[in-house]
Amino acid sequence: MSFTAIELIQTKRDGDELSPEAIKWLVHGYTEGTIPDYQMSAMAMAIFFSGMTPGELAVWTEAMLHSGEVMDFSMIAKPKIDKHSTGGVGDKISIPLVPLVACCGVAIPMISGRGLGHTGGTLDKLETITGFKTSLDPYTFRRILQEHGLVLAGQSHTIVPADRKLYALRDASGTVPSIPLIASSIMSKKLAEGLDGLLLDVKVGSGAFMKDLDHARQLARTMVGIGASHKVETVAYITRMDQPLGAEIGNANEIAESIDVLRGEGPSDVTELTMIFAEAMLEMGGIDGGRERLEEAIESGAALAKFREAAIAHGGDPASIDDPSLLPRAPLVDTVTAPRDGYVTRCDALVIGVTATRLGAGRELKKDKIDPGVGITVMGKVGSKVKEGDPLARVRFADSERWESHRELLESAWVIEDSPITASPLVVERIDRNAI
Amino acid sequence: MSFTAIELIQTKRDGDELSPEAIKWLVHGYTEGTIPDYQMSAMAMAIFFSGMTPGELAVWTEAMLHSGEVMDFSMIAKPKIDKHSTGGVGDKISIPLVPLVACCGVAIPMISGRGLGHTGGTLDKLETITGFKTSLDPYTFRRILQEHGLVLAGQSHTIVPADRKLYALRDASGTVPSIPLIASSIMSKKLAEGLDGLLLDVKVGSGAFMKDLDHARQLARTMVGIGASHKVETVAYITRMDQPLGAEIGNANEIAESIDVLRGEGPSDVTELTMIFAEAMLEMGGIDGGRERLEEAIESGAALAKFREAAIAHGGDPASIDDPSLLPRAPLVDTVTAPRDGYVTRCDALVIGVTATRLGAGRELKKDKIDPGVGITVMGKVGSKVKEGDPLARVRFADSERWESHRELLESAWVIEDSPITASPLVVERIDRNAI
Repeated sequence: MSFTAIELIQTKRDGDELSPEAIKWLVHGYTEGTIPDYQMSAMAMAIFFSGMTPGELAVWTEAMLHSGEVMDFSMIAKPKIDKHSTGGVGDKISIPLVPLVACCGVAIPMISGRGLGHTGGTLDKLETITGFKTSLDPYTFRRILQEHGLVLAGQSHTIVPADRKLYALRDASGTVPSIPLIASSIMSKKLAEGLDGLLLDVKVGSGAFMKDLDHARQLARTMVGIGASHKVETVAYITRMDQPLGAEIGNANEIAESIDVLRGEGPSDVTELTMIFAEAMLEMGGIDGGRERLEEAIESGAALAKFREAAIAHGGDPASIDDPSLLPRAPLVDTVTAPRDGYVTRCDALVIGVTATRLGAGRELKKDKIDPGVGITVMGKVGSKVKEGDPLARVRFADSERWESHRELLESAWVIEDSPITASPLVVERIDRNAI
Repeated sequence: MSFTAIELIQTKRDGDELSPEAIKWLVHGYTEGTIPDYQMSAMAMAIFFSGMTPGELAVWTEAMLHSGEVMDFSMIAKPKIDKHSTGGVGDKISIPLVPLVACCGVAIPMISGRGLGHTGGTLDKLETITGFKTSLDPYTFRRILQEHGLVLAGQSHTIVPADRKLYALRDASGTVPSIPLIASSIMSKKLAEGLDGLLLDVKVGSGAFMKDLDHARQLARTMVGIGASHKVETVAYITRMDQPLGAEIGNANEIAESIDVLRGEGPSDVTELTMIFAEAMLEMGGIDGGRERLEEAIESGAALAKFREAAIAHGGDPASIDDPSLLPRAPLVDTVTAPRDGYVTRCDALVIGVTATRLGAGRELKKDKIDPGVGITVMGKVGSKVKEGDPLARVRFADSERWESHRELLESAWVIEDSPITASPLVVERIDRNAI
């Protein structure tokens, strides 16, 4: 069959359905470079407005997935399950979750990203451990997974090249926030990992990409639908991201807090979400024992030992895991204090995430360098009772002038009122294939 | 003020209004090449979906207009008035209209286009007159206008370069049929002619770009609004294009029919529309005499003499105007006949236009060459009473095989039924600035 890109753009623009052959031709042609950027950006904008049917989306994702190498770990007997978060502030869940689940018998071939905008990235956090390498060749990726039951790496150029190209184009053409394009981008990369199961954490709230529940739900359902159409068991949790997760924001800070969780000493919200996801992943993997088994893995030190083992397998020096005070720390410290007595009723994730990024913990542009020792420790979370002058947050920074010019911004993250409010439950809902 | 293209795309995508500064920055940057095609095509698609406010559109058109040279004919005392048609099948109105109106005292600096798709182009038709040059340098353009009160030429590279670039991009990115983009494209080119008045013929029907009255009306009102915001008196006529205009389709064919009109021997529909437009142009130009003056110009031979004079001014040989049998003619002739007795109730402009194009009278791609002698003469127009075997059309062609493979297509243009229907009136409505 023969197509022209113009006709396919017109079809989508006019709200009609693209045939499977047309979608394959389009994704293939764009990846190969025979369809130019200016046609694909118009197509992406048409998709933004016209959407995609579940059928179109399944084929689109499949075509993206097969634009590059699809990993095959069928020789690994363990269930292969991964977790993906749409990103938030202080969201370090993957770091304690992966070793915890791995030491209970799930194999996790996790491909992660770097921080961009106000959210951090798992790879940047892991690299605060001296020597920890996240850029792995396919052979090493497979070997670490096989030997240790887990691997944490960046996306290689051979995996879903169509997404690499399309994501850059969407970023430059105002077509990022399209639910089918987001869903197919995430799912094509995850499905390329050769998984048996996938747990999705779809964040909603001020610090999340999805600001309202309707859109988060739509994204979650769309991704669970794609997973189902590819016969990969996919479960999505919609979780709140109005305030940061845990107390620590920043790369070294979040590694330290992750170690606390693995030691059984983490803040209750991070610990609880880690346990909920871990339990779901064991269930998906058909592994018995549930919550008890997970608690045992923490109490016995097995989960922390698995993290230590993983760090060494990735070329890292475990010294900072044994003694987190060795993690990089920016030289200067200041605090933000409560301006009055009362109860914290808001502790805004977006404002705190933006401040941390601007101080050097994250990137505003892809080419920016991060400072691993910059971070914010939040004491004043929603519901806290505070007195005037009590610390709401401790800031570690390297550049006094930059910090001073952001102090007001950070202070604006908090609202303190006379009466306490209860923070919304962290998990809003769970969506599996029965729910769509 | 500083902008980024991504932010402006997002603004338009989300249905918000672009500031005048933003629009100027965008159009300027695109013309200069600092804004890449892939951003402009996404913007065009966002405009397709989100539209433009009248305020945005006035600034957008202004920015396009000032991307290149704006002509100034203020030293010519006569009223400067042009006419533009959105294009149809057999639409040769400009050819008799321009000399007719010019010989009554209106100056017409007409910039026309070439045929593309199923519609013909004034330039291609004029060039069937041996030696007739339509590619003129600015000096010659001005001189012919000054000396003869009319000039008919193609768009030079110095006029509205933004539109030249944007139109090619829209054509390749599925963003042609956006009313604000169509309106600003047409109006920026026409306003660059330094006019006092503009008559617009917005075609509606199967053979027109606008298939339904709502869209045609919206386009007409939009263009009249842009004219008003630029203080150029603009009047739009919405006219039917369900069947071809006149009997002749094809380049030499249409020149011959235009000469008939100038001799007072043209088909009634072409003659009537020419007279209505000519009268409106005289009125816009403040020239007395109206219909009577026009009829006198035809009867006296002054209008035809003006056409002859124009042809010579453009380097053309007037022999074929004096004797139209000298016009190019494709060597082969065939007819399509009525399959039954009855009344013609449909004579489809699109089907006839597509057939003529495929036989060589037009271009499917810009690079195609046309055959000036190929054409179709329609006898069976809507309302005609026919007997089985009566000719519905005569076809002149050069390639028998090509004709045979299109015969069925052409035959499908006619529907013959037992009872007659009346063709819809040619002029649907007139829209001037009081009507918007």
